Amino acid sequence: MSFEGIEEAFQRINGIANKTPVMTSRTLNMLFKSDIYFKCENFQRVGAFKFRGAFNTLSLLSEKQKERGVITHSSGNHAQAIALAASLLGIKATIVMPRGAPGNKINATKGYGVHVVFCDNTLKSRNKTTQEIIKKERSILIHPYDNDNIINGQGTVAYELIKEVGSLDIVIAPLGGGGLLCGTALAAKGLCSNISVIGVEPSLADDALRSLKAGYIIPSDYPNTIADGLRTSLCERTFDIIRTYVDDVVTVSEIEIINAMKFLWERMKIIVEPSGAVSLAAILSKKVIAENKKIGIIISGGNIDLKPFFQLLEKDIL
Amino acid sequence: MSFEGIEEAFQRINGIANKTPVMTSRTLNMLFKSDIYFKCENFQRVGAFKFRGAFNTLSLLSEKQKERGVITHSSGNHAQAIALAASLLGIKATIVMPRGAPGNKINATKGYGVHVVFCDNTLKSRNKTTQEIIKKERSILIHPYDNDNIINGQGTVAYELIKEVGSLDIVIAPLGGGGLLCGTALAAKGLCSNISVIGVEPSLADDALRSLKAGYIIPSDYPNTIADGLRTSLCERTFDIIRTYVDDVVTVSEIEIINAMKFLWERMKIIVEPSGAVSLAAILSKKVIAENKKIGIIISGGNIDLKPFFQLLEKDIL
Repeated sequence: MSFEGIEEAFQRINGIANKTPVMTSRTLNMLFKSDIYFKCENFQRVGAFKFRGAFNTLSLLSEKQKERGVITHSSGNHAQAIALAASLLGIKATIVMPRGAPGNKINATKGYGVHVVFCDNTLKSRNKTTQEIIKKERSILIHPYDNDNIINGQGTVAYELIKEVGSLDIVIAPLGGGGLLCGTALAAKGLCSNISVIGVEPSLADDALRSLKAGYIIPSDYPNTIADGLRTSLCERTFDIIRTYVDDVVTVSEIEIINAMKFLWERMKIIVEPSGAVSLAAILSKKVIAENKKIGIIISGGNIDLKPFFQLLEKDIL
Repeated sequence: MSFEGIEEAFQRINGIANKTPVMTSRTLNMLFKSDIYFKCENFQRVGAFKFRGAFNTLSLLSEKQKERGVITHSSGNHAQAIALAASLLGIKATIVMPRGAPGNKINATKGYGVHVVFCDNTLKSRNKTTQEIIKKERSILIHPYDNDNIINGQGTVAYELIKEVGSLDIVIAPLGGGGLLCGTALAAKGLCSNISVIGVEPSLADDALRSLKAGYIIPSDYPNTIADGLRTSLCERTFDIIRTYVDDVVTVSEIEIINAMKFLWERMKIIVEPSGAVSLAAILSKKVIAENKKIGIIISGGNIDLKPFFQLLEKDIL
């Protein structure tokens, strides 16, 4: 992965991925005396930035690899991203999902015409099911972040943002497995001479912070954060980039994440999932000091189960 | 009110009101084989189109009128719009609100530095309180829709939309008191030679449909629709314009309104209030037939109480 890789990925996904809008909030800018730009990947196809990396990666497969098909295990945004990208590129895809995954996610994934295989909700069952299919079908495993082309694809988020609003002082991105943050760092350092790149993870899933302190990877053990997209841990590939190019990693509490979501929903009228709100949480909770700065905030996605809310509403009218 | 009045209002609010984004949905366009453009006034200042009419009207007051100050009675978006516009223009404003109004709306209104006076939750108490203040302070009453300059301001929504996306076959707007729909009709007919203008009201507040059939105004009597912004009834001013320039009025049920909200929240990731979702409800429920058409849909606002949803979320993490 590299800045050049990101530029090429940008050409590749251009016109296929959404050029997501950049939003601002007068209230926030006034409150923090800063210019804060939100890059809204909740408006990306499948509702999250993951489509960028997925499409970039699948379109770079050789014809032979495409014939073998791809496989991934995920119940989250990566699964849907692979499903849509595969469907657009006419590649056979298998998604391994835990039996307990939310019905709407299963249906959305199936809706792209891919093959969904269920496993038990344990790491062991997931790996076993996946390995069996790979052995039988020779499918190519597409890891959600331990993959250069995935990271290059995710880097197009910050690339697009900075190309649109100009050089930034700070850019802040959510940090789970590290794919988005690594891409962000490579794009930002490539485009801005003096930018500070900051990753934000939930305190309940602070493997990156602990790993950086220790100097080696210490994974999170079944972290229970509301930010379900950030429960994953770093891999060597992302750890190396983060150590080299990321200026700081900060953590936010569960209530700080919810408060950031509240601001985005109530004031800015956009639906952002918990993982997508951590960058703003770092500003609101003053883990990152915003004053007289030009700041980019990456909103990574907007996929959250709204059924409980609509059930409440419907109860009112029935 | 007139097309020229709308053009002038557009110049007046330009750079002060937000130029709200136009959004699209691949899914919807595919489903209905049409090009559907959403004009998203949920991203307008105060969260609704009402700011346009309020600012246009207040900035047209004479210096003497400005000194006397303005007054309005509303617990909704019009109140906040008047409050913000008055605060920006340095005009004294009094907002009469029922004692039972939601705390967040009261606080938001007070936040603009205007004077809030409470009345009982009856029409009689509201009018009495308002009249007493008008008598004492000689304040100018700013009606939410029975006012030419308000209607011209609201017309800038459709004006901006059509200027951005080009001529449309159909434009659909919510219909409560009629201010937005009248402005929409005047702008649309002024800009497009062959456009169909459609108003949508809740079946539970179908005073416009009944009035059009009867040929005279038949107000809705305390309608109980979830679309709280559309509970108001027509006035002679809006009734006349609607009879002359609006091609059709259709109604949607409560469940159709909620289904449209669901689509906007889940698929498009934007927060839209029930009143703001009725235009899409008319498409989804096939009250307006979309096929091979270029359609503008006006999303009027995004102010809805999200407390119940966040209470559910917080319960999960605490």
